Amino acid sequence: MRIITLIISISLAALLPLKAQFTPQSKVPPPMTEQFASQVRGYQQIIDTYHSTAEKIIRTAKQDNLCYDRLAEMCDTYGHRLSGSESLEKALDWIIEQLKKDGLDVTSEKVMVPHWVRGTESATLVSPRVKKLAMLGLGGSIGTPAEGITAEVLVVKSFDDLKAHASEAKGKIVLFNVPFTTYGETVQYRVNGCNEASRVGAVASLVRSVTPVSLSTPHTGMLRYNDSLTKIPHAAITVEDAELLQRMQKRGVKTMITLKMEAKTLEDSPSRNIIAEIKGSEKPEEIVVFGGHIDSWDVGQGAMDDGGGVFVAWNALRIIKKLDLKPKRTMRLVFWTNEENGLKGGTQYALNHKNELANHVLAIESDAGTFKPRGFEVKGSERSKVLATAISSLLNPIAADLIVDGDGGADIGPILETGVPGMELIVDDAKYFWYHHTDADTMDKLNPDELNLCSAAMAIMTFVAADFPIRFPK
Amino acid sequence: MRIITLIISISLAALLPLKAQFTPQSKVPPPMTEQFASQVRGYQQIIDTYHSTAEKIIRTAKQDNLCYDRLAEMCDTYGHRLSGSESLEKALDWIIEQLKKDGLDVTSEKVMVPHWVRGTESATLVSPRVKKLAMLGLGGSIGTPAEGITAEVLVVKSFDDLKAHASEAKGKIVLFNVPFTTYGETVQYRVNGCNEASRVGAVASLVRSVTPVSLSTPHTGMLRYNDSLTKIPHAAITVEDAELLQRMQKRGVKTMITLKMEAKTLEDSPSRNIIAEIKGSEKPEEIVVFGGHIDSWDVGQGAMDDGGGVFVAWNALRIIKKLDLKPKRTMRLVFWTNEENGLKGGTQYALNHKNELANHVLAIESDAGTFKPRGFEVKGSERSKVLATAISSLLNPIAADLIVDGDGGADIGPILETGVPGMELIVDDAKYFWYHHTDADTMDKLNPDELNLCSAAMAIMTFVAADFPIRFPK
Repeated sequence: MRIITLIISISLAALLPLKAQFTPQSKVPPPMTEQFASQVRGYQQIIDTYHSTAEKIIRTAKQDNLCYDRLAEMCDTYGHRLSGSESLEKALDWIIEQLKKDGLDVTSEKVMVPHWVRGTESATLVSPRVKKLAMLGLGGSIGTPAEGITAEVLVVKSFDDLKAHASEAKGKIVLFNVPFTTYGETVQYRVNGCNEASRVGAVASLVRSVTPVSLSTPHTGMLRYNDSLTKIPHAAITVEDAELLQRMQKRGVKTMITLKMEAKTLEDSPSRNIIAEIKGSEKPEEIVVFGGHIDSWDVGQGAMDDGGGVFVAWNALRIIKKLDLKPKRTMRLVFWTNEENGLKGGTQYALNHKNELANHVLAIESDAGTFKPRGFEVKGSERSKVLATAISSLLNPIAADLIVDGDGGADIGPILETGVPGMELIVDDAKYFWYHHTDADTMDKLNPDELNLCSAAMAIMTFVAADFPIRFPK
Repeated sequence: MRIITLIISISLAALLPLKAQFTPQSKVPPPMTEQFASQVRGYQQIIDTYHSTAEKIIRTAKQDNLCYDRLAEMCDTYGHRLSGSESLEKALDWIIEQLKKDGLDVTSEKVMVPHWVRGTESATLVSPRVKKLAMLGLGGSIGTPAEGITAEVLVVKSFDDLKAHASEAKGKIVLFNVPFTTYGETVQYRVNGCNEASRVGAVASLVRSVTPVSLSTPHTGMLRYNDSLTKIPHAAITVEDAELLQRMQKRGVKTMITLKMEAKTLEDSPSRNIIAEIKGSEKPEEIVVFGGHIDSWDVGQGAMDDGGGVFVAWNALRIIKKLDLKPKRTMRLVFWTNEENGLKGGTQYALNHKNELANHVLAIESDAGTFKPRGFEVKGSERSKVLATAISSLLNPIAADLIVDGDGGADIGPILETGVPGMELIVDDAKYFWYHHTDADTMDKLNPDELNLCSAAMAIMTFVAADFPIRFPK
């Protein structure tokens, strides 16, 4: 799941003699930020010394050209990696082996994760004619009775539209046919549609897949039941079929659907976060933590979301190790488990490392795609953005030196809550939501060169953050 | 099915004072062409008088805005329209009713068509792990035994690659993993892959879907068995899964697939070409015939291929009728049946109207998509292109005045064989093969405005061709 980005201009350009990416504004910066910027400017010579290291990292990423094949081997061998699945745990075992081969220190920590299983499922238009609808039940949904739920369909275009037709919803299957605008805006119908439909007496709910482009491709993803309401089954159908049902309704044609879902939630299941480290040479207790999530939905290969994300982080640490660079602070790579349907990995990490969090100097996630890298989103103080901008100048040779405001990323959320500055790798994400949570999230959508560049961007940002004389300010 | 276009420059620019679309060349034109061009130039005033008619046609198409809703009503109500299916025949009945409401003269002619049925089908990777593969059997394929065919997979990248590995193919399922270049080049693996695989002893064959873009979307289409070889089942899988199997093979991993297909060919079934006319006021025996095919594959809605094509032709005739324009020659609209898997409609038409073909002055097909219109392809003599170019100037207001060389179109092929000049409507087809022969060929891919413009382009070209003082030269 991609956390939504708000690109907010901040007034740093005037503060920093570096190629700043923020839009200048007339707002007067807080004095602390100005002082810190001045301090960072004092380290310009140090930053300059990192240029050759950055070049070496970029060259090594390209020459090794390892990330794509490694990710493909995992994706092809084990398939998708839903929390609670055997394939996720097998993939984790394989990763631990490979990390050891890389010469990295590896530990893992147990995480109890939700265990939702899809089972067999189908949606069929049964009136006015019979047509099988491509569908995917939404993560966490309850199932239907074995004979399915057969009901008339009420198509609505928004929650307001549902309210306006609330009196017609009782006993029906409500379909939210909401065109994609932004993920943040549109995904609410996937997450919450079942609750609003239940509130007005619907027996099940459907959502138009959350995507700007469809080739008859349903998209799954998480829902969140409101415990005060009756739970009803909730599934995604394609843009194509949602539009068909919309047109039929507009034409005055009554439509009936039979929805069958075996979906159920089993007992929580054990999984693991995997952690690999290079210990800091001077301040091992200070930690730059970075990674992505290793779990995926139970469709496609989870190659983009978030196999690629966590593998470029892994490749970054591998390159640092291979080049025998010795960061002053500890660099810690985490393969978080269960981001998609529980965030238990990120939550457990923050809990297990509670006493270390004050010494987490920076947390970086890579879960926004691994296409051509553009830079990093930053969540933190203005001062943390000053330092991020200074370091990002090293990414200029690969045109990945953009620094913008953002949310940081889901897995590192619990760390960021304690005031640790956060970042997320950002990429050319024009097609991200074409593939997101579908059978089309597969290796063929990724590109070896782009994975190399993402790896280099992650390696440079994490290494310099771990090695820089000044610690990232809270 | 889209007939492939070759854009060939011809030397008309120097001949015609109109906005000619051909690249000037130094080649000396044949004297007949020069004489004819001079004759056409003499009618420039007549062409000028058609400008107000063309404007009226364009305005009416836009104001009525009828084509999209009419096509949607048919597609939504009856679904796809494979030859031999009840849904095709129901759609034909509905069309006849609507044509009569338009005040057009309607006849239909019986056509016996192949009756291939897909039945239940599946492809499953069974080793080294179990994974369901999205697939579509190819039209005309035989089925498998009820228990399916389970065999090791041999992935090849071309017919030459298959020859190079011929000794390994016996008893295997051959997968042609051929990336899309052009339709004409790539489709040969869909049409002929089963024969080449059978020749080297394969027990079944698979083809990577013929498309430049996939969101886990299989594409069906016709195959052609070579009767001198053992018939083997032939199906399409997705780009995603073809690439997966390719990577596994490259990695030295043996893969096994179970292919189950109930596909079979039943007795030929009766269908119909539907014909609607406006009789010519002066030369009713001279005919401008135009249309598209009404049958489709048994996936999606056949909205683009070729519902849109034949509906813009229909809408063109409806507009001419509504505006009470009286062409000198007869304008004849045909809904050809069975283009996709037999071309029986086009063949039967040429047979039934054998004695009229000498008086078919022009045949126009619309089966290359109905997105933003760009102009017409022309198949015929240089002189026919001179006249087409002259008339196309009337399409300049909607930027659809391009005239290029082409093949004319499949349904009108048997007419063109007798020397009748042919045309095909051409459009902005950048995404045509994204949707072609898939569940994504649905109404949401089309646009009311573009259908109106295509209708206007067809109406202007067909009306002026039917009304012009000079007959289209053979």
